Amino acid sequence: MSSEPTNDQPDQTEPTAHPGRRLSRRHLLLGGAAAGIGAAGAIGVDLVAKAGRGGSAAPAVPLFSGTATVPFFGLHQAGVDTEPQARATFVALNLLPGVDRAALRRMMRILTDDAARLTQGEAALADSEPELAVVPARLTVTFGFGPGLVAIAGGEAPGWLRPLPPFTIDRLQPEWSDGDLLLQIAADDPLTVAHATRMLLKDLRSFAAVRWVQSGFRRAAGSEKPGTTMRNLFGQVDGTANPVVGTADFDALVWGQANNPGWLAGGTGFVLRRISMDLDKWDGLDRSGRESTMGRTLANGAPLTGTKERDEPDFEAKTSLGFPVIPEFSHLRRARSEDRSQRIHRRGYNYDEAPSGTGVSNSGLLFACFQTDVDAQFVPIQTRLDTLDLLNQWTTPIGSAVFAIPPGCTPEGYIGDTLF
Amino acid sequence: MSSEPTNDQPDQTEPTAHPGRRLSRRHLLLGGAAAGIGAAGAIGVDLVAKAGRGGSAAPAVPLFSGTATVPFFGLHQAGVDTEPQARATFVALNLLPGVDRAALRRMMRILTDDAARLTQGEAALADSEPELAVVPARLTVTFGFGPGLVAIAGGEAPGWLRPLPPFTIDRLQPEWSDGDLLLQIAADDPLTVAHATRMLLKDLRSFAAVRWVQSGFRRAAGSEKPGTTMRNLFGQVDGTANPVVGTADFDALVWGQANNPGWLAGGTGFVLRRISMDLDKWDGLDRSGRESTMGRTLANGAPLTGTKERDEPDFEAKTSLGFPVIPEFSHLRRARSEDRSQRIHRRGYNYDEAPSGTGVSNSGLLFACFQTDVDAQFVPIQTRLDTLDLLNQWTTPIGSAVFAIPPGCTPEGYIGDTLF
Ligand code: HEM
Ligand code: HEM
Repeated sequence: MSSEPTNDQPDQTEPTAHPGRRLSRRHLLLGGAAAGIGAAGAIGVDLVAKAGRGGSAAPAVPLFSGTATVPFFGLHQAGVDTEPQARATFVALNLLPGVDRAALRRMMRILTDDAARLTQGEAALADSEPELAVVPARLTVTFGFGPGLVAIAGGEAPGWLRPLPPFTIDRLQPEWSDGDLLLQIAADDPLTVAHATRMLLKDLRSFAAVRWVQSGFRRAAGSEKPGTTMRNLFGQVDGTANPVVGTADFDALVWGQANNPGWLAGGTGFVLRRISMDLDKWDGLDRSGRESTMGRTLANGAPLTGTKERDEPDFEAKTSLGFPVIPEFSHLRRARSEDRSQRIHRRGYNYDEAPSGTGVSNSGLLFACFQTDVDAQFVPIQTRLDTLDLLNQWTTPIGSAVFAIPPGCTPEGYIGDTLF
Repeated sequence: MSSEPTNDQPDQTEPTAHPGRRLSRRHLLLGGAAAGIGAAGAIGVDLVAKAGRGGSAAPAVPLFSGTATVPFFGLHQAGVDTEPQARATFVALNLLPGVDRAALRRMMRILTDDAARLTQGEAALADSEPELAVVPARLTVTFGFGPGLVAIAGGEAPGWLRPLPPFTIDRLQPEWSDGDLLLQIAADDPLTVAHATRMLLKDLRSFAAVRWVQSGFRRAAGSEKPGTTMRNLFGQVDGTANPVVGTADFDALVWGQANNPGWLAGGTGFVLRRISMDLDKWDGLDRSGRESTMGRTLANGAPLTGTKERDEPDFEAKTSLGFPVIPEFSHLRRARSEDRSQRIHRRGYNYDEAPSGTGVSNSGLLFACFQTDVDAQFVPIQTRLDTLDLLNQWTTPIGSAVFAIPPGCTPEGYIGDTLF
């Protein structure tokens, strides 16, 4: 680098912890100070102006977006209702032979301790690269339990905690599917995600082996107006019709506990589908074909019967020829249930990897969603889409995994303490 | 997503072009307006405050960091002296059989047009996902020519345009090495990089096939104070001793044309080394061992004889036992030449991929550097490091490629027009 500011002022990245308090979107957007961001400093304009060429200003408040933290402890785990961070890595592990209930308890105590520290911008115990821990960048670490782990723990598994039923569209590859333990590691900074992932995996080494790792991205934090719905690699606005965090609707769909065993109270269910998207084939379709496939416009994601992203779709509207404006085969129509309880909280990420062979893209969606009852909420939607959804022409599920997300914990407890 | 602001106000991402003017670091840091960033808006604090819950503010100036642009046209290509963006994808291609000089000319005209548009936040011609083009996020596209391409063009190749001489430390894999054409696609936003990469590769399909793709990252833009030197995955401050952009020193080392053919005037030379870093083995070394290996501290990158990152190392200083404080075998001592002309402009990125087998990391550095004469500047350093450098215990070069970076062009010309 050719720049004057240096690493000599560690105060710039001093973490600010907010124990016991969950960061709401409004805090994050509107109340810089409450969110661990110096109000003037979320950009550093002030600091830059002051430090200028001398680099000698020593600000008293944390100054960059990298210092924002999401509380770790609480009723729920973070990373579910957290405004999605720019990057996420999902890791599934297989427990090693011989790992028993007592070992699981030790394992989860260690992982909880790591996550509690790292998410607050503190080094993990025995962190070998503590300097990489100082930028929390809204890091969250969310743990999920697969059926194998719950069985070893001797706990009652929710009925839905098993591989999804097979769908005709599936082309699942075992290397992207299933697992005993899930880590969802998400932050606005990729180095933060890389460091946290490594620390957790190092501590997991005596308990479990990596089964798969899947990394994804959205637009960088700060690229666009906060709260702008993400776009996927088909160019579509993706994530509009989601339950709104903080509403009773969201609480029922995500945190409700209808049929779950007691240890899951405060927890939820998680599905990850790795869905490859054939960008080349998609690009062969004209714009109106693409919009009919979805039932929404590409320009701003409005339903074909409306003008704004959040306009309610009018499924009755007909064209002059008498056809529905939002076609029967469209993803919008097929994905939406009349039964309002059949809804999910989608929190997906794009993936884009090096193409192989003669291709120019190897891309898709890490379709991630949370719902309290996978069988009652996710499966009916996926079944409907399996039966009919024009989008299936361009998308193929190649990985699938289901995990139970245990509740959060207090500083005295650990994630999973209600199970063990 | 559960948020009120929507995609309905496209003005938020309106690009601001600054033709013919190169973005200097100072402009970028100190003069928001000059850099295509609304001064108050580099963070969006203003907008957030105004838009609040209503989401109805329609600001007249671009407001988010995603709108920042780096000019495309100029004497030099962008992406060399540009303050490094948060993400970069390097792609090498093999020309298809039958691609001749006339085809190369067509190819470079098309690619130039794509890059000129995309870097300014405009869709490429026949862009299939124009909505993904609206966030330039300081996108730069830098083209490099390998020996095969220069031969087909019938141009004179600089003497250094060939694979590097073999080094004893090398464990090169062909799938990470060489190539006819290089694209360096870098921006502060991963979706921007993904879209630009795809558009360019689509247009390249009739001319060339992908040979390799390598993607890397630094801290997210805004995570830290602008100008903070990056850290690599060993936790080291990496990039301190670089020539300073805008100085005569930099111009001579990077843009000087000592032994280059005429068509390269305004251009430079590029080396990419994929260097795997054994994080596990590194973590086995204690902190003082790691600091001796480098000759600099981990805390802030200061030389072991100093306290601040940019203090000059004192190679004469001795410990009480009479040993050099900065060891003879240290990377700092070995990488630094007494001959000041043997210097390079490093602009590397971290990589971190899914581990295979029983490992928990597959990580390293995309060591990228620019210098006008690879043989006279890079090779002596790499030769010295090959002979002795304790860091070699933990690092292994597994890929290597050399390209000539042609000069920039005017809006009437195209990249490579001095060669064809
Ligand atoms: C690569 C595959 C997929 C793509 C590209 C995709 C894309 C989209 C897009 C663009 C929308 C409209 C905007 C929005 O409300 O987010 C949407 C809506 C939706 N999608 Fe998907 N989707 C995919 C797979 C799935 C899967 C596997 C499911 C569940 C099984 C699903 C469930 C939904 C739901 C529930 C909605 C909201 C429908 C509503 O109530 O309006 N999608 N999807
Ligand atoms: C994974 C491999 C490598 C790592 C982790 C690494 C790391 C570092 C670090 C931490 C520094 C000190 C801070 C700085 O000035 O940036 C440094 C300096 C330097 N490195 Fe490396 N490096 C690697 C490979 C290389 C290679 C392959 C070359 C060139 C052949 C190289 C050339 C240099 C130079 C020229 C300096 C500046 C020396 C000076 O102070 O004048 N490095 N490197």
